[in-house]
Amino acid sequence: MLYLIGLGLSHPSDITVRGLETVKKCSRVYLEAYTSILMAASKEELEKYYGKEVILADRELVESGADEILRDADKEDVAFLVVGDVFGATTHTDLVIRAREEGIAVESIHNASVMNAVGACGLQLYNFGQTVSLVFFLDNWRPDSFYDKVKQNRQLGLHTLVLLDIKVKEQSWENMAKGLKIYEPPRYMDIATAASQMLEVEEKRGEQAYTPNTPCVAVSRLGSPTQKFKAATLKELSEYDAGEPLHSLIVMGRQTHDLELEYLYQYVDDKEKFKKMVEEDQEFFKPAPWVPPPESESDDE
Amino acid sequence: MLYLIGLGLSHPSDITVRGLETVKKCSRVYLEAYTSILMAASKEELEKYYGKEVILADRELVESGADEILRDADKEDVAFLVVGDVFGATTHTDLVIRAREEGIAVESIHNASVMNAVGACGLQLYNFGQTVSLVFFLDNWRPDSFYDKVKQNRQLGLHTLVLLDIKVKEQSWENMAKGLKIYEPPRYMDIATAASQMLEVEEKRGEQAYTPNTPCVAVSRLGSPTQKFKAATLKELSEYDAGEPLHSLIVMGRQTHDLELEYLYQYVDDKEKFKKMVEEDQEFFKPAPWVPPPESESDDE
Repeated sequence: MLYLIGLGLSHPSDITVRGLETVKKCSRVYLEAYTSILMAASKEELEKYYGKEVILADRELVESGADEILRDADKEDVAFLVVGDVFGATTHTDLVIRAREEGIAVESIHNASVMNAVGACGLQLYNFGQTVSLVFFLDNWRPDSFYDKVKQNRQLGLHTLVLLDIKVKEQSWENMAKGLKIYEPPRYMDIATAASQMLEVEEKRGEQAYTPNTPCVAVSRLGSPTQKFKAATLKELSEYDAGEPLHSLIVMGRQTHDLELEYLYQYVDDKEKFKKMVEEDQEFFKPAPWVPPPESESDDE
Repeated sequence: MLYLIGLGLSHPSDITVRGLETVKKCSRVYLEAYTSILMAASKEELEKYYGKEVILADRELVESGADEILRDADKEDVAFLVVGDVFGATTHTDLVIRAREEGIAVESIHNASVMNAVGACGLQLYNFGQTVSLVFFLDNWRPDSFYDKVKQNRQLGLHTLVLLDIKVKEQSWENMAKGLKIYEPPRYMDIATAASQMLEVEEKRGEQAYTPNTPCVAVSRLGSPTQKFKAATLKELSEYDAGEPLHSLIVMGRQTHDLELEYLYQYVDDKEKFKKMVEEDQEFFKPAPWVPPPESESDDE
């Protein structure tokens, strides 16, 4: 059996009881280590916590070494650990399809991920549209496909969860060209960088999908003991020091309920100013006021 | 301290290790029992598993008895257990605001919920728009506000997660009028009822937000040992017996990737027929083909 097991967001003990029992009975335990990181635990701490060896699975292993991960999984139990929940990344779907082709049974043990835990900031999950990802801009590569999606969400009045880039075990172009397997230190996009990149794209595109004054929520280290939320304008967040990774960002939509706002006030510097920004921002994409249809002849029938 | 603890989807052992350790040290343990149910465990089983009493918190207690839940929580530890993740329902946000007003510290221990675990069906969470809820229709109350949201999602090519109504500890109008606290047996909307109600609303509205042939995914008992997925048209699902609760439904959007489709094939009766339905459905809300702009004078400059 191949077990896909979500680890949750932060502590080694964020694994479920059923997940931990399963890890303990598996003959091999892989930890997916390139789409996210467990904030409060290293590989060594996990090994100590589980009482067994943990094999780090980088992108190379998961995408081209599936045979090795699935080896003998028809006869033995193999665990594949994923930070957050199991189906955050496309590559895991791929692994399951491979397993099924080889007649290996698969079971998932779910856990919290940023996609649902973000509700902790007080914004209702029902009021979110599609989730977007933001990658580190390079000199000659500044992809802005997220912009249309944020705009679509905001046109509907919905909030947008923006997931920020993580670079783990990446090679520089230079080392890649030389065929050297030397990896850069890991990088995690912070909120200030994300907000700055978003402002740059708004300046370039100029469609007012959002503005420097659009209210946003900075989410730092969600689910960890040092979790922090900060509600402010996008411009303010472009200069905000959110501390250690991981970070995410929420761009608010027009349909902000009073209860949501009430909850956010505890994370703002200046309540009145923030409220004013929210009210001003609600003017964008506001539907035209309802006008009664002209009286028609049929009323007299 | 008030601890909000997510229980996950099904087994008593779906609680996280940290969640279980916390429950064990709390002096009172409440279980929120009206927005969802834990599929594979009763109150008694949870009590046995935790080794302590569990107090059922119905809507009445949570919405008007917050004082009782929060009693002495500034000096003692109180646990408030929620099926799925912590912030699925608005009422919990309310409880946290109340706690903070009284100077009571609050900590959340997250878990899986249908909002993220639904990725297990093979559709990518990134391709979902806003989540909608469907309530049991009554003779004189057939709310269709979900329809516009499904349409908005489908106009963008996105999938829609439809959460189905749960009626726990509801009074009949008759008993309510008589002031009798007699409660109806719990009811959980099944997929066939959901699909039928959606077809009725489409027939009434006639905007082709979706059609009887729109491909959907039936999700039964997500996260439990008997979890099941079924991919079929909405019409087919209106006659589908999905078995024991809980159920959810996904209405697919135009932007279905090949990998998503590949994954869904294992849940269909007839692969070729399903593929044809997906292709036909992709014609709805298809953007107009790109036409190059007319040559302008500036090209010659």
